[in-house]
Amino acid sequence: MFSLCDDTLQNVGLPAVCIVWQTAMIILFGVFIRYNEESDTHWIEQRKAKNISSDVENDFYYRYPSFQDVHVMIFVGFGFLMTFLKRYSFGAVGYNFLIASFGLQWALLMQGWFHSLDYSDGKIKIGIENMINADFCVAGCLIAYGAVLGKVSAVQLLVMTLFGITLFAVEEYIILDLIHARDAGGSMVIHTFGAYYGLSISWMLYRPNLNQSDRLQGSVYHSDVFAMIGTLFLWMFWPSFNSAVTDHGDGQHRAALNTYLALASTVLTTVAISSLFQKHGKLDMVHIQNSTLAGGVAVGTAAEFMLMPYGSLIVGFCCGIISTLGYVYLTPFMEKHLKIQDTCGIHNLHAMPGVIGGIVGAITAATATESVYGVEGNTFDFDGDFKDTVPTRQGGLQAAALCVAICFGVGGGILVGCILRLPIWGDPADDNCFDDEPYWELPDEEEAIPPILQYNNHMRNKDM
Amino acid sequence: MFSLCDDTLQNVGLPAVCIVWQTAMIILFGVFIRYNEESDTHWIEQRKAKNISSDVENDFYYRYPSFQDVHVMIFVGFGFLMTFLKRYSFGAVGYNFLIASFGLQWALLMQGWFHSLDYSDGKIKIGIENMINADFCVAGCLIAYGAVLGKVSAVQLLVMTLFGITLFAVEEYIILDLIHARDAGGSMVIHTFGAYYGLSISWMLYRPNLNQSDRLQGSVYHSDVFAMIGTLFLWMFWPSFNSAVTDHGDGQHRAALNTYLALASTVLTTVAISSLFQKHGKLDMVHIQNSTLAGGVAVGTAAEFMLMPYGSLIVGFCCGIISTLGYVYLTPFMEKHLKIQDTCGIHNLHAMPGVIGGIVGAITAATATESVYGVEGNTFDFDGDFKDTVPTRQGGLQAAALCVAICFGVGGGILVGCILRLPIWGDPADDNCFDDEPYWELPDEEEAIPPILQYNNHMRNKDM
Amino acid sequence: MFSLCDDTLQNVGLPAVCIVWQTAMIILFGVFIRYNEESDTHWIEQRKAKNISSDVENDFYYRYPSFQDVHVMIFVGFGFLMTFLKRYSFGAVGYNFLIASFGLQWALLMQGWFHSLDYSDGKIKIGIENMINADFCVAGCLIAYGAVLGKVSAVQLLVMTLFGITLFAVEEYIILDLIHARDAGGSMVIHTFGAYYGLSISWMLYRPNLNQSDRLQGSVYHSDVFAMIGTLFLWMFWPSFNSAVTDHGDGQHRAALNTYLALASTVLTTVAISSLFQKHGKLDMVHIQNSTLAGGVAVGTAAEFMLMPYGSLIVGFCCGIISTLGYVYLTPFMEKHLKIQDTCGIHNLHAMPGVIGGIVGAITAATATESVYGVEGNTFDFDGDFKDTVPTRQGGLQAAALCVAICFGVGGGILVGCILRLPIWGDPADDNCFDDEPYWELPDEEEAIPPILQYNNHMRNKDM
Repeated sequence: MFSLCDDTLQNVGLPAVCIVWQTAMIILFGVFIRYNEESDTHWIEQRKAKNISSDVENDFYYRYPSFQDVHVMIFVGFGFLMTFLKRYSFGAVGYNFLIASFGLQWALLMQGWFHSLDYSDGKIKIGIENMINADFCVAGCLIAYGAVLGKVSAVQLLVMTLFGITLFAVEEYIILDLIHARDAGGSMVIHTFGAYYGLSISWMLYRPNLNQSDRLQGSVYHSDVFAMIGTLFLWMFWPSFNSAVTDHGDGQHRAALNTYLALASTVLTTVAISSLFQKHGKLDMVHIQNSTLAGGVAVGTAAEFMLMPYGSLIVGFCCGIISTLGYVYLTPFMEKHLKIQDTCGIHNLHAMPGVIGGIVGAITAATATESVYGVEGNTFDFDGDFKDTVPTRQGGLQAAALCVAICFGVGGGILVGCILRLPIWGDPADDNCFDDEPYWELPDEEEAIPPILQYNNHMRNKDM
Repeated sequence: MFSLCDDTLQNVGLPAVCIVWQTAMIILFGVFIRYNEESDTHWIEQRKAKNISSDVENDFYYRYPSFQDVHVMIFVGFGFLMTFLKRYSFGAVGYNFLIASFGLQWALLMQGWFHSLDYSDGKIKIGIENMINADFCVAGCLIAYGAVLGKVSAVQLLVMTLFGITLFAVEEYIILDLIHARDAGGSMVIHTFGAYYGLSISWMLYRPNLNQSDRLQGSVYHSDVFAMIGTLFLWMFWPSFNSAVTDHGDGQHRAALNTYLALASTVLTTVAISSLFQKHGKLDMVHIQNSTLAGGVAVGTAAEFMLMPYGSLIVGFCCGIISTLGYVYLTPFMEKHLKIQDTCGIHNLHAMPGVIGGIVGAITAATATESVYGVEGNTFDFDGDFKDTVPTRQGGLQAAALCVAICFGVGGGILVGCILRLPIWGDPADDNCFDDEPYWELPDEEEAIPPILQYNNHMRNKDM
Repeated sequence: MFSLCDDTLQNVGLPAVCIVWQTAMIILFGVFIRYNEESDTHWIEQRKAKNISSDVENDFYYRYPSFQDVHVMIFVGFGFLMTFLKRYSFGAVGYNFLIASFGLQWALLMQGWFHSLDYSDGKIKIGIENMINADFCVAGCLIAYGAVLGKVSAVQLLVMTLFGITLFAVEEYIILDLIHARDAGGSMVIHTFGAYYGLSISWMLYRPNLNQSDRLQGSVYHSDVFAMIGTLFLWMFWPSFNSAVTDHGDGQHRAALNTYLALASTVLTTVAISSLFQKHGKLDMVHIQNSTLAGGVAVGTAAEFMLMPYGSLIVGFCCGIISTLGYVYLTPFMEKHLKIQDTCGIHNLHAMPGVIGGIVGAITAATATESVYGVEGNTFDFDGDFKDTVPTRQGGLQAAALCVAICFGVGGGILVGCILRLPIWGDPADDNCFDDEPYWELPDEEEAIPPILQYNNHMRNKDM
């Protein structure tokens, strides 16, 4: 029924990659990674030395609830969002689980070298904020997975994640530390980068005969309901995503509020456009599952700024429209004319809203005033690390950051796409795409029918 | 197969309502809504001016974890609880998503005008507590949705939500601010009001020929499992619901504890009664999905009071019995004799337990003593805003509040029911109720059968 | 189609047990259980008397987010993990709900008598930490449920829970209070005990003719996806489980971090071994659903210690391998040769990793040094309650604790197994195992087929 180019590779490739890479992680963690001062037993001494009044000032208590929400988004949110395909739910949720688990370890190292290296002893010191950032870094790769869902093997996904995390860490370092742009919810750093990375890979891996799998490239009733679990957990916890690493106090408070509002607004315009462009005014589950999230993406950069509640609603309003129209017109166009096969429509959910988010961030930054942001406020610290930054300059930096994210995404994607085209990764044949069968032990569905019905069917067949 | 009275309306009605209303929200938010002092960039200055020692005193950290739990209850809890119908899961979770997203924006405005208006500049100042209250307000409308599930169109639901939120805000203002009753978990304000609002609407929209949809008014195996996702997330996070806006410190602590206990007790009596009243002692999933939650409803008002742990257990004990008996006897009776068709049985899950909750609250308040509540305690502050309030008087106020909630529910429901009977909303024909088909693009189920089985069936049919 | 030995018992047994036991709980709670000082209205006075600066120092704010995560693990995590069987999803999630709800009440009493008894008035004073510990205690019984899933009645499960909680509380008291071992995440106290308790019961209830239910002892496609909901919520929230009752500050911080890392590592080795030992390198959902969690179990005891990030990865690495190999080789061996039928494979997920966790804890404790743990640190307080404890001695105590856990599990399981063999509990016949049919009202599946398909089938049959 299906044939793999290399059965031995399939048998040995995935286990070998997993074991070797995990062993490498252990060694690198052994050499480089230690607890930071807030997760180390010496915290109590540090606390007293620094005159910190209470354990509750440990960053853990400011960020752990947000971390857990982000964690749910990564594993249940992304995982279940992709279960919509009728016969690829195991691959969706299972491979998402695998690459996220590898990715977060590699991200702790890569981001650690850039951001958390203690030069006194050459060790990376980690705590709760590193855990959140590692999850963020993984999100970029999971977005990219959406573009190639059902068309690549587990080993290809792991390779894609290895390079994706590496590129992400460099891009993030350039954007946050060299350019000094701000991007709390990662509209640029995570979504724009991740989406263009995935789309470029999908373009490099173009399959002209993918229509052979048309039969499987759709949903069934219950797989769409499973996907709604992913949608809702992403939607509900997005305020935590955008506020997880913002400043304590008003920074986290405002980021959560802005995101909450933007997302609510997106739902209404998504429903409107979905209904308007379907026959008989029906709603399309693909739009409800995906475009309702666009507002959270687009408000990522500006969520911590003084975007104002109505500003958040406007961002969400526009993104619901643009994202849904993207599903209606752009995705078919891209597949037909640009040779980009985008299984989950990440161009509509992450790329366009991410770019919008970058632009909104640049405009908000450029129009900042001291009366709005206060003299002591550290949230939108347009004096940043150097005294002569003026708001318009910060706006320019934000725009530059957006360009960096796009370039890293496209360039990195093409590079990694070339690597993934090597015929050694055991990717599925065209008529095996979107099918769990080649990679998973599947249960025998015949027996799913309750015995009483089996009996009835048996009788009925007999009678005829 | 089905016919809509007005195809054009269906095509244009929903998009028009969504776009226009969302635009109105943006304008109203622009005119009225601003950040409050804890979510504004000037927080750091405020903090220093008010001598607040730490960012952790920002209300965000006291309430955000509870907010996220409540948010999950609203979108996953209510949404999935209603997926039990075999062919209405898209409508259940999708429309729930739509009306909650609209409702929370409208609630921020309505509740804001009554509770958070800053008279110095005429703006509503919002923060985390407003977000929670908006979600609460939405809960009232989602409860009402349960009564009419599968029998109304999306536009009707939006109209129902618009009026529901408006009525809720007025009712809440009367109960909390004029009567000075307390209702932390909203037994009266949310559940009693929401349930009678929904039941009255369902009564006004009575469909004598609904039995034409009998074929679809039931569950299938997996839709019942989906509904359990909703049940469990409601059940687990109910302690957060009842404690989300109670006083800091012991108030939140006690409310969570009481709710946790009441819910545990309800599960056992629900199982007992369900088994007792079925043939062969079998359990009925409808009871397990719904009646297990009744304890959380009934303990809503008194959760923050000194109800005592055994008091919580007693409340839960009674509600499990009453609610399950309601499903067995009352729901069929109401449908047959009172012409109230209650799809989800909200009378058993919200109306009766809500009324019990109001009564329990009144009794607990009336029997309060200074030795139990302390002189400094602010949780059950029976001196409230005026010094001469005595416990028995507070008990009377609680009882008065319950009456207000019922009146608003019934009266408002009849009024809105009249509006919804206008023949312009595109509601489904009797034989299209409980069916996603008229409103959603549905996947083609034939292809759900794995290819190997399709082949087998093909062969089998051939042989015959 | 099926016969129950005693229909009357089935009709009356379960309701009677639920009502009587719940009534007993109310009476015992009335006699014994009161709020502790942090959940009582007198908190504000206590706070001032003890010079506590802020409400945020109420233990509620340190632990409530973790509590809610643990709560999700107990009800959704364990509940959905067991829904993998094709026709036992109602029993899995429903009975899990029932026994957890009873268990947590009984656990509050049992653990309260040992740990939270206020000798001044003979009352048990409860708060957030008791709620977490009650959930932990329940976890032990739910683990045991995994071994007998599908083969026992609800009444048997309740009996098993009653005794399980009782044994747990005694075992926990011996390990934590008499031996003075530490076991924050319960590798020994919860997992080792619970697993051996369940396995011993399963051994006592051995069914030689269980193969009559072979037809039902497997999954279907969507039941495996449901089970992944359980897996992921357990996996994601395990850091909260292991850190929920550890010390404030660095203790909770470090426990969460270690668990996060161990679990990530486990996923990779589970995938590797699963793929390596299947035909064509395919992955097996049973392994992905279960073995990926083994790292969380094994790091339970040592999570709060200075295990170091690489140490956590190593523990996860080993457990993924051992647990998956257990599913491949050990479970069939145990069923065939040891007469232990372990439905969910708890020996691989809880017993072996739990024992490993105990050993890792003993080694980590034995090798503790003052330079690593600090003089003031209270996390690994090897001076404990008596000054002369040295690390090696603490290591010995940890090892002794592990033995106690195993003995209580095996001994208690055999005892309770004897009780459960009495022919009065209405357990299912061999050919009714793994089937919801005897205990639940099941929906009529015929109607699940959308009408259009029914029509097609009808036509097709007619033509032939």
